[in-house]
Formats: sequence, structure tokens, C-alpha cells
Amino acid sequence: MTEKKQTFDRYEIRLSGSGGQGLVLGGVILAEALGVYEGKNVTQTQSYGPEARGGASRSDVVVSDGEIYYPKATELDLLLCLTQESCDQYYPSLKEGGLLVVDSDKVRQVPSPKAFSLPFIRIAREKVGTPVVANVVSISAVAGITGICSKDSILKAVLARAPRGTEEKNRLACELGYEMGAAAERGVHV
Amino acid sequence: MTEKKQTFDRYEIRLSGSGGQGLVLGGVILAEALGVYEGKNVTQTQSYGPEARGGASRSDVVVSDGEIYYPKATELDLLLCLTQESCDQYYPSLKEGGLLVVDSDKVRQVPSPKAFSLPFIRIAREKVGTPVVANVVSISAVAGITGICSKDSILKAVLARAPRGTEEKNRLACELGYEMGAAAERGVHV
Repeated sequence: MTEKKQTFDRYEIRLSGSGGQGLVLGGVILAEALGVYEGKNVTQTQSYGPEARGGASRSDVVVSDGEIYYPKATELDLLLCLTQESCDQYYPSLKEGGLLVVDSDKVRQVPSPKAFSLPFIRIAREKVGTPVVANVVSISAVAGITGICSKDSILKAVLARAPRGTEEKNRLACELGYEMGAAAERGVHV
Repeated sequence: MTEKKQTFDRYEIRLSGSGGQGLVLGGVILAEALGVYEGKNVTQTQSYGPEARGGASRSDVVVSDGEIYYPKATELDLLLCLTQESCDQYYPSLKEGGLLVVDSDKVRQVPSPKAFSLPFIRIAREKVGTPVVANVVSISAVAGITGICSKDSILKAVLARAPRGTEEKNRLACELGYEMGAAAERGVHV
């Protein structure tokens, strides 16, 4: 499916932001890309309750080539933040050397000098025509930055969940996000 | 929101069936009903990988009034099965005294004499006009059987996730499922 193959003992991804940004569905799609189309072991979790009601929404994806004994993300390898509040809340859970990926318009106080700061929501609104696909732009960028799954796999997973009539917008969101992420990872200014 | 209030140390629900029956979304909606609208602590998990590729899809919801230290369901309090294969695979994980809830047309070999056997998929197809809402009928029936969340809460969660234009079908699926579950729990033949 792709030449780019990585082996992980365990890789923990957290997608965070505010409720209504579609990150629960984003986590489901990313997990399906990895589990169904890339053949990884994947667990996808979200929590509701006092923590979630703090204002920051989160959706966790744990990937492994081996069995996953503990499905909850505890030491994040990658943290995506679409709001300042979620960044403030979850940055302490990012492990040393972990990747921080933030929305450049929403997260103005970036706690690490090495973050990927990209305009996910703006790209969704201006290039696709609707902010509702910001979740697809974001998870596709995560795929592009990490190489954890191929563009083909994330696109298949996105299209399998796209409501009828929204396939083209979702395809475009996925393409733009993946290429933006891959370019950022190579150090190309986008 | 409801007079019926229960307290749980921990209550584990597994929704199982085959891929494409909408049980990942069903788990997300049930978790939102409990976590967002009932104020419980909830963790919702799905796994992909060799286990999932065995053919049986599953989506787990763990509910508690206290903190959830381990989010994975291990000793099920309630198991819903929309296929024979998922019933065969997960019935051993149902704890003694746990509730088995099966689709009466799809699960013909019921491993317990005390199961709730109800026609979720048939009700979706014949009374709502589309089998795609079988997931909503099923989770609403789970709410009605257990009383774990009010009809109001499950309906709010269902409508919050209903694609535009499908609200009425989803509302009907929820009403039918909840009432069928509540009636079955009272021992009324439906």
C-alpha cells in the first residue's frame, strides 16, 4: 500500500480542541486509517466527564505493531491542539521529544519552540469552503507529518466516513492537509 | 433531567456486530448521552487490528460515577450483539448476572436463557424505513432496558449526531428503541 513502513512499539496521539470541532470523529477516522487500511493494532478512546467538561475536548489514538495492553494515552508522542485552552491543558502530557502540532490562528502562546504551527481551520474555510472539514485537514496533516500512515490509507478512511454529497470537499481537505503536513515535516514553508 | 437515578461504581457496555452496522458511532452517541447529558464519567473505546479483523466489530462504553482508571471493558455488565459471530466471540466476556441483548433475527443460537432478544434491525427497516438506524434503535433499547440514561438524554445525543435531514427518522428510531427496551425490561411482550 505504501513503501513507507514504520514499526512502533507504541505511539500515542491526542487530538484536542473544543467540542464541536469534530475531533471525536477525527479520532475514529484516523484509527480506521491505521487499523483497517494499514493493518496496525489501534485503540481509539474518548472520555466524557469532569475532565472533558473543563472545556477541552480530546480523542486519543494509540497505535502499535504489537498488542495494546493499556489503551489510554498517558505519555503522548504527538499532541494536536486546535485551541489555546486544549494546548495549555494537555501540553504537560506530551513526552520529551514528542511532536506538538497546533492551529496557528487559534494557538498563539505555543509552549515549545519546535512546534508545527499550521492554519488548519483557515485552510478548511478558505480552500475547501467550510470550517467543518478542519478535523479532516488536521488528521491528514498528522499523517503527513509523521508518515504513520500513507495518504492513500487516510483518504480511504476519510471517504468511508464522508456523508453522501461531501466526498469532494473531504477529498480536497485530506489532500491539502496531508501535503501541508508532509511539506512542514520536510521544513518547507507553506 | 430524570427521576430515575442510578449510582455505579463501574458499568461496562459492549456493542458488537459486524463492520458497517454503525456501532462505532453508536458507542460515541451512547457515551455522549451518558457523559454530556447525564454527567457521568464515561470512556468510549474501539479497537482495530487482528481482533477486530476477526469479523466482529465492537465499541465499548465504560460508565462510572467515580474516576475511570482503566478504560477498557474486561468484565461486561451488558453485551449487545447484532450478529451471531459477535455473540459467539464476546459472550464469554459477559460477567455472571450480566445482561445479554441480541437481535432476534440475527442471533438464533442464544447462549443464555435470560437474554433480551429483540428485532432491532427489523424495526429499523420496517418502522423507520431504513436499516441504517438499527444502531440508534439498539442503543436506545439499551438505555430503556437498563435505565442507565433517560430517554431525553439519549434523544438529545442522537439528534446532536444526526446528519441534517435525518432528524425525524433518528427521533423515531430512538423512541421505538427506548420504548421497546423499557417494555422488554418490564416483561411486556412487544
